[in-house]
Amino acid sequence: MWKMSRQDILDLAVGAAILGAGGGGDPYIGMLMALQELDKGREIRVADPEEVPDDSFVVPVAGMGTPTVLIEKIPSGSELVYALKALEEYYNREADFLTPIEAGGINSTIPLVVAARRGLPVIDGDGMGRAFPELQMTTFHLYGIKATPMSMADEKGNRIVLDTIDNYWAEKIARVVTIKFGGTAWIAIYAMKGSDYKRAAVWRTMSLAIKIGRAIREAKERGKNPIDALTEASNGFLLFRGKIVDVKRFNVGGFARGEAVIDGMDSFSGSKMVIKFQNENLIALRDGEPVAMVPDIIVVVDQETARPITTERLRYGLRVAVIGIPCSEKWRTPEGLKVVGPKYFGYDYEYIPIEKLMGR
Amino acid sequence: MWKMSRQDILDLAVGAAILGAGGGGDPYIGMLMALQELDKGREIRVADPEEVPDDSFVVPVAGMGTPTVLIEKIPSGSELVYALKALEEYYNREADFLTPIEAGGINSTIPLVVAARRGLPVIDGDGMGRAFPELQMTTFHLYGIKATPMSMADEKGNRIVLDTIDNYWAEKIARVVTIKFGGTAWIAIYAMKGSDYKRAAVWRTMSLAIKIGRAIREAKERGKNPIDALTEASNGFLLFRGKIVDVKRFNVGGFARGEAVIDGMDSFSGSKMVIKFQNENLIALRDGEPVAMVPDIIVVVDQETARPITTERLRYGLRVAVIGIPCSEKWRTPEGLKVVGPKYFGYDYEYIPIEKLMGR
Repeated sequence: MWKMSRQDILDLAVGAAILGAGGGGDPYIGMLMALQELDKGREIRVADPEEVPDDSFVVPVAGMGTPTVLIEKIPSGSELVYALKALEEYYNREADFLTPIEAGGINSTIPLVVAARRGLPVIDGDGMGRAFPELQMTTFHLYGIKATPMSMADEKGNRIVLDTIDNYWAEKIARVVTIKFGGTAWIAIYAMKGSDYKRAAVWRTMSLAIKIGRAIREAKERGKNPIDALTEASNGFLLFRGKIVDVKRFNVGGFARGEAVIDGMDSFSGSKMVIKFQNENLIALRDGEPVAMVPDIIVVVDQETARPITTERLRYGLRVAVIGIPCSEKWRTPEGLKVVGPKYFGYDYEYIPIEKLMGR
Repeated sequence: MWKMSRQDILDLAVGAAILGAGGGGDPYIGMLMALQELDKGREIRVADPEEVPDDSFVVPVAGMGTPTVLIEKIPSGSELVYALKALEEYYNREADFLTPIEAGGINSTIPLVVAARRGLPVIDGDGMGRAFPELQMTTFHLYGIKATPMSMADEKGNRIVLDTIDNYWAEKIARVVTIKFGGTAWIAIYAMKGSDYKRAAVWRTMSLAIKIGRAIREAKERGKNPIDALTEASNGFLLFRGKIVDVKRFNVGGFARGEAVIDGMDSFSGSKMVIKFQNENLIALRDGEPVAMVPDIIVVVDQETARPITTERLRYGLRVAVIGIPCSEKWRTPEGLKVVGPKYFGYDYEYIPIEKLMGR
């Protein structure tokens, strides 16, 4: 068990945006809220998965909704605690540990706020090892954990508890409620025993995010190339360098979909990359051929600073590098690929691990 | 406390369709389900409001959704009990009494099915004295009773508990969930103490519906005019006789809206009536002038048999009589008219009670 410092939170926000694969909302807002908690004298304690007793009660907490809306509706903090409270009341049991549902985006930092407010430790791990747009896209789901009973709360004080027949129904119902809430909901979901968490979670993704954020920061402080630091810390690949020449986007059923086109520069001159996204980046095609595919992580960063650029902030003219990072092995099974492989998202490609595509 | 006979159920279904003001779904399905319960040897006990102890736990149960869908998705019965169970678990208290939320349509008979299955008495009263299309349109709401915590269930086994900041939010959220459920949800709502029920409910609407149904049946058996029997038993007015010459309808956000045009016959020859509806009939205009307005009950019946015709069954060529029936006095306050008056439904008329419009 260790306590998170201000610097840890700052580094985490950078690393989490990388692992967010361009989605999950900008971690900046959650970072500010987490820093504010430390300013108020509260603590954020982090537990290693090894420290979680089998019979403890673990509750993942998160925000849900369109990232674009999230930016305009900054939460006060109390609504997050309210969602957790609703689920605890339903179970008639208090949480022993919190954990993120995803390692990327705002949902990497949101649990820190709840943890600080409630004095509960947050576990260094999550249910995705990255960010994904739908509730059933978790390794928890893959390992048979039920998403429901789950709770939802909005900033007005509305609360809902869902108990659905499967995790796809949880997603369907929660999605329409989120839209009706005004675009954002706060949720407590996949409540489970410590033993289930340990076998189903992607371990130590919070410390991985901090490691990535720290590597980028230190490279800049030392005048080194932050892109190199990023690929090294994340065990990732440089997929492309270039200038964004087109971005198309459309908001469908609560999801932000679109694609970005990048003209190659430097060693990629004369090549073209197309990135397709739905909240997160899903497929990277170089001159028509896939070089990285979901569930592997594709992230667009500023070419000079390695600052990650979320899909909602992609725009014409940005000079970017595209990085690919291998996903958790948990996703690379036939069952995992059914839930989050290219075909689930409507792309007719057989998944090939990024290491293979890159010839490593 | 009395037990409902097969004949009571048959009469109730006819009277409830009258009080349904053309909406709330055809009571026929609920009637069949209630008869089936008696066939299985179960009892349906009815309690007078006077018999309800102040500290008892009263739970209204109902179906929610577009009546047109309801006809195609006949419930098995167990899903109704499931919604009640979800709310009882949330409260950690079993219901002492059930009651209808509305006196009209399928929701007049649905509580009988739940009552039979659970062996619970159903109270002779309801929260509308008619049928209405939205959850906050109840005298319970008018008297400050909270719609939530409320539960929802579908036939697949999905369950939801809502706890909203007000009854309008309950309506908003429950409506989108109902649509996602496939058009129909089963709900338990406005759970309250016996003392609250007694001050907030419209009393003895179940026995009124049976009285109306019986009067129509007996008139037919005796070769008398069933329309006269209907107006007498319901304390109502004959507003129009004629032939339907046009029906327009559109399904918007889960509601069936539309209007019917009727050409006058007999003493109404040369006149034209337009009826505007949203699930229920809301305004009756004779030659452009209102002759009955919501919350008073407007119902279209077959000219010969007095069989009520729900709005989803209105069609060109039907020969009909239009009947107007005074609503509960509870609705005729400024507060009541704010919730269910003509202006709430978008009609720019000051409400005038039907007795006044008819010069009685």
